Amino acid sequence: MVYLASSDLVPKALAGDTRAIARLLTRAESGSAEARPAFDELFRHTGRAHIVGITGVPGSGKSTLVARLAAAIRAGGRKVAIVAIDPSSPFSGGAILGDRIRMGELGGDPGVFVRSMATRGSMGGLARGALEAVDVFDAAGYDIVLIETVGVGQDEVDIARAAHTTVVVSAPGLGDDIQAIKAGILEIADVHVVSKCDRADADKTIADLKNMLMLGLASARGTWRPQVVPTSAVRDEGVQELLTMIDRHREALAASGEIDARCAAIAERRLLAAGEEILRDRFVRDRHGRLAGLLAQLARRSLSPHSAATLLIAELGENA
Amino acid sequence: MVYLASSDLVPKALAGDTRAIARLLTRAESGSAEARPAFDELFRHTGRAHIVGITGVPGSGKSTLVARLAAAIRAGGRKVAIVAIDPSSPFSGGAILGDRIRMGELGGDPGVFVRSMATRGSMGGLARGALEAVDVFDAAGYDIVLIETVGVGQDEVDIARAAHTTVVVSAPGLGDDIQAIKAGILEIADVHVVSKCDRADADKTIADLKNMLMLGLASARGTWRPQVVPTSAVRDEGVQELLTMIDRHREALAASGEIDARCAAIAERRLLAAGEEILRDRFVRDRHGRLAGLLAQLARRSLSPHSAATLLIAELGENA
Repeated sequence: MVYLASSDLVPKALAGDTRAIARLLTRAESGSAEARPAFDELFRHTGRAHIVGITGVPGSGKSTLVARLAAAIRAGGRKVAIVAIDPSSPFSGGAILGDRIRMGELGGDPGVFVRSMATRGSMGGLARGALEAVDVFDAAGYDIVLIETVGVGQDEVDIARAAHTTVVVSAPGLGDDIQAIKAGILEIADVHVVSKCDRADADKTIADLKNMLMLGLASARGTWRPQVVPTSAVRDEGVQELLTMIDRHREALAASGEIDARCAAIAERRLLAAGEEILRDRFVRDRHGRLAGLLAQLARRSLSPHSAATLLIAELGENA
Repeated sequence: MVYLASSDLVPKALAGDTRAIARLLTRAESGSAEARPAFDELFRHTGRAHIVGITGVPGSGKSTLVARLAAAIRAGGRKVAIVAIDPSSPFSGGAILGDRIRMGELGGDPGVFVRSMATRGSMGGLARGALEAVDVFDAAGYDIVLIETVGVGQDEVDIARAAHTTVVVSAPGLGDDIQAIKAGILEIADVHVVSKCDRADADKTIADLKNMLMLGLASARGTWRPQVVPTSAVRDEGVQELLTMIDRHREALAASGEIDARCAAIAERRLLAAGEEILRDRFVRDRHGRLAGLLAQLARRSLSPHSAATLLIAELGENA
């Protein structure tokens, strides 16, 4: 396989070439400097796809739901891409599970593209990589991009919030610890899914959610009222209703003009994430220079982390 | 209650005044600029406490373990503080569960201090706040500081890694999704705890962990070999063994000199986290100035997030 410069991959990806898309996704994940101009260029071609974040606590059944939702989108004739964020080792930086092959029913259909991404090594890069992967799919003409995250941890929540529509998946019968985590993500939902509604205790989960929404404890941004969609993978129910609700949300954002505010918020978050990554890169590059001296002062406790960081940023700006 | 400047609280906290400590903890959590010089000053007095990160997946029983471990530390005559990181709402920025009152058996003992911290709003601040809380306890003379995190998500893993000794709690009988998350944190462990060892299937969990350690899949840094400690809250077993193992690890770090490398790694991570927070603060302060113009260019897609961030950092450095 010939190595192609990232910039040469861009026109191919824009034309929908899946091999070019796959290579760009790999470079989005690794965050290579060589690919930087290519992603800048790709970004100019984004803005058409509807981006849907799907998040939920462990055990909520969101992976099954995502697969079925993708199938329903395809059945309606639209192209769909999935960016799935995997838990992985913070030390190795690699995905332990590897790319998950779990979209069997969709295999061989060029209108579906599934990409698993590792959660990255120490501090950051995950949001940037995942959102650049979304850019690739958006620019390449996928109509809907689903971002699946596990819904625990700030990175994952940030990624879910970088979507036009955020779906939070709940399930009946989870433990107390899980419920506590769940509380942290309910408020970001535009659409709530209660999965496993074949279970007898699902009614209580649905009622609890609806009560919470009535009390305004989890009212979403703007004029849209978050909706609850029950689903059951066992009974094959609710997925079409979920897709309809996602489309309704997209239309409501457009009709009210709120889509502009939401895109502006996403842009601000992405700008900030990019800034943090630039800062990290420069820190690492400077590890044996000024950084080493500051670290020695930290070790002697003659400088605090905050004071040291202030000094370093001032210098980085001067040398930018 | 008279408002005291943070700098006036420092000498009181250093003398062990619990009310001054509590106030400084609140200011660590909120990240107020007023408190900045106080935390710089407190940092000079740190470096005595042994910091233990205790992390585990939801349902692993780590909160119970932390409470019992604190009791065991007290029984041995040492002072102990607990910083517990709570899941909370990314929108409200407040802890949904509030400060957890769950240390009943330790109540009224001035040698124990428990502080729950909310996981903060959009992007960051959690690690900084939690680690400044650790500084407060360290400077105030607590011998051991336990940091309890839920062990999912990069922030939480980063916090757990900012410890001298990292304990990862596993439990038998968790689901597949949970196991996948667990895989991401096993490698950071200096000590593994298998909780709920009264359960019949605990033997398999222990055997799996030991196999993994034998295969070197989760060998920790340096010469220390990670150890497995079985515990049972029901049978009240294993907590003293865990404390002994934590002390053995501390002694091993000191004997080998690895403590210096570990402290240097922690310092570097804290410096980076502080730098990211400075960057965030400046972004927010600049929201209506240069940032607004860059965001407009992002909305028009004439600049990518990375290009916009590069421009902004250069300017921030000039104006530092």
